[in-house]
Amino acid sequence: MLETRLDLDRIRAARQVIDPVFLDSPLYRCEALEPLLGCSVNIKLETANPVRSFKGRGTEVVADQLARGDSRAVVCASAGNLGQALAWSARHRGLDVTVVASRFATPAKLERIRALGAKLELVEGDHELARDRAAAIARHDGIRLLEDSLDLETCEGAATIGLELLDSFEPYAGGPGRPAVLIALGGGAMATGIGYVLKLLAPHVEVICVQPHGAPALTRSWHERRVVTTDTIDTIADGVAGRRPIPEVLDDLLIVADDAVLVEESSIITAMQLLHSQAGLITEPSAALGIAAILESPTRYANRPITTIICGSNVDQSKYRNWLTT
Amino acid sequence: MLETRLDLDRIRAARQVIDPVFLDSPLYRCEALEPLLGCSVNIKLETANPVRSFKGRGTEVVADQLARGDSRAVVCASAGNLGQALAWSARHRGLDVTVVASRFATPAKLERIRALGAKLELVEGDHELARDRAAAIARHDGIRLLEDSLDLETCEGAATIGLELLDSFEPYAGGPGRPAVLIALGGGAMATGIGYVLKLLAPHVEVICVQPHGAPALTRSWHERRVVTTDTIDTIADGVAGRRPIPEVLDDLLIVADDAVLVEESSIITAMQLLHSQAGLITEPSAALGIAAILESPTRYANRPITTIICGSNVDQSKYRNWLTT
Repeated sequence: MLETRLDLDRIRAARQVIDPVFLDSPLYRCEALEPLLGCSVNIKLETANPVRSFKGRGTEVVADQLARGDSRAVVCASAGNLGQALAWSARHRGLDVTVVASRFATPAKLERIRALGAKLELVEGDHELARDRAAAIARHDGIRLLEDSLDLETCEGAATIGLELLDSFEPYAGGPGRPAVLIALGGGAMATGIGYVLKLLAPHVEVICVQPHGAPALTRSWHERRVVTTDTIDTIADGVAGRRPIPEVLDDLLIVADDAVLVEESSIITAMQLLHSQAGLITEPSAALGIAAILESPTRYANRPITTIICGSNVDQSKYRNWLTT
Repeated sequence: MLETRLDLDRIRAARQVIDPVFLDSPLYRCEALEPLLGCSVNIKLETANPVRSFKGRGTEVVADQLARGDSRAVVCASAGNLGQALAWSARHRGLDVTVVASRFATPAKLERIRALGAKLELVEGDHELARDRAAAIARHDGIRLLEDSLDLETCEGAATIGLELLDSFEPYAGGPGRPAVLIALGGGAMATGIGYVLKLLAPHVEVICVQPHGAPALTRSWHERRVVTTDTIDTIADGVAGRRPIPEVLDDLLIVADDAVLVEESSIITAMQLLHSQAGLITEPSAALGIAAILESPTRYANRPITTIICGSNVDQSKYRNWLTT
C-alpha cells in the first residue's frame, strides 16, 4: 500500500467520466531526438485535444461531479491551462465558471478562457495572489473552489496518464537501463498522480519531477521534506510557476517521487527548440522540462528508456518565435 | 455496393496488423481556428507517431504481408513519407528496403529514411523519375515493388482513417450543415481509401480532395474523367507532387470523391501559419491543403462541420521558418 491521498479505484473510475477526447493520448518513441539526447525517448503527447494541455483530464472529473450536485458554480485560480480546461468541461454541462489569473499570464491562454465562455478576473500579482483571490470569491459567493493539486480530482485526472504509460515499459523489461518518467512539477497534481500509479503498478520505473531553478519551491520542499516557500518567481515556464507548495501535496510527493531536479532557463529553451526541430512539436516551456533535464544530465539518463509528458502547447506566438531563435 | 478496388472487410482486417501506434490518432475540434474559417473544424492528427505521417498505416499492411512471404526485399519510390514509413515498418521485421527519391526531396525526410536503415537512392529528376527507377530496380532484382496508391495495401491502410472518422459525424446529424471531409490528394491512396469508407458507411458526408494548382494532374483527371498528365510540378507541397495519375486510382476516385479542388500556394502557406498559431501544430504543406481550401472558399463551407486530415509534419526547418514568416 502506498499511503498517499490517491486511490487506484478512484483513478480507474475517473477514466469513465473523462471525455474520450482527452484519453489514450499518443505515446510513441521519437528516435530523431535520441542521437542528441543519448537515451531512448518516448513522448506522451497531451496537446492534441481541444484545450492543448493535460488539464482536461482533471477538469472533466470535477465538472462531472459538479453537474451531478446542487452547486453549479465553480471558481479556480489558473496560470491559464486549468482555467481553459475547466471552461471547456463546464460549458456543455451548464456550469458557471470563474477563472482568476495573474494579469501577467500568457495572453493566448487568457484569450481561450474567455472564448470558452468563462468569467475571467485578473489580479495585479502572480499566481499565488490569484489563488488567494479565488479562495476569497469562493468564500464570498459560497461556491466551489477548485484548487489545483490539492483537490483530488485534479490529481486523479492526471493519474489516468499513468495508467496509459504502463504497457510502454514492457519492451524494456529485462534491459540494462532502468526506465524513467520525467514529469513537469508545478502544483504537483501531475507528479503525484502519475507517480502514484507508477509506484503502485510499475515500481521499477524511476519517477523524476522537473522544475525550473526560477520556480523551485516544491522541489526544494521535496529535498528538505518540509514546505519551503519562495518570495519570487523567475521563469518562462508559466505553467509551473508557484511559490507556496501545498503541504498535503508535498506529503504525497515525498512518497511517490524518486527525485526532483531543477533546470536552467537556457535548457528549457534548447529543449523547446529540439522538440520543434526533431519531433515536430510546439510545446510550452513547462512541457519541455523533461527534455531539459536530459540535456543537463546526459550521463544520468544515458541509454535508458525515458518517457516524458508533453503536457501543454499553449504559447504566445511572439514569445515562442523568440525562444526558437534564441 | 461501391465498385472500387477496395473492400470493407480487408480494411477492417488491415486494422489488425497495423501497429497500434498508428491507429486511433487524435480527432478533436479546434475551436481557435473557427472564427477565422467560418466553419466547425475537426482535426484528424496523423503526425503524432514515430514517422510523423499517416503512411505508417499502409506500410504496416505491406510489411506484414512481406514478412509472412518468401520475398523479404521491397523497393518503393517516395517523396519521403512513404519511404520513411516503409523503413520503420520493415526494420523490426527484418525486411530489406530500398527507397528511390528525387534528389530535390525534402532533406529532413531523406535523413529519416537513412536513419531508419533503408537503402536510399536519389535520382536526378522529380518523383515520376523516381517511380520509373524503382520499377526498374524491382524488375532487375526480382523484388517487390511497392507502388503508392496503386497497391491496395496503401489504400487500405489509409482507409482505416476513414473508419476512425465515422463516429465524429454523429453530433452533427440532423444539423443544417452537411459534413465534409477535406483530403489532400497526391497519388490518391488517402482519398480513395477514406473516400471509400465514407461513401459506404457515411454517404451524407461530402468527400472533397484538395491539390495545389502547381500539381493538378489527378484533380484535372477527375474533372475530365480521363487520365491527364502534366509536364511540370510547381508547388511547395512535396508530398502530393505527382504528374502521372494512375488509371486504376482515378477510376476509384471517380466513384468515391464528390469534388476535387485546387488551391494556391499562398493559401497553403497561410493555412500552415494558422495551424501553427491557432492549433499549435507544425504541418507540412500537404497537410495544410484542407485548411487552404476553406480559406479559398469560405462561403462553400460556412457553418458546416468540416474535418481535415493533418497527414504529415515532416518539414525542413529553414523552409518552414520562411513559410511562417512570409
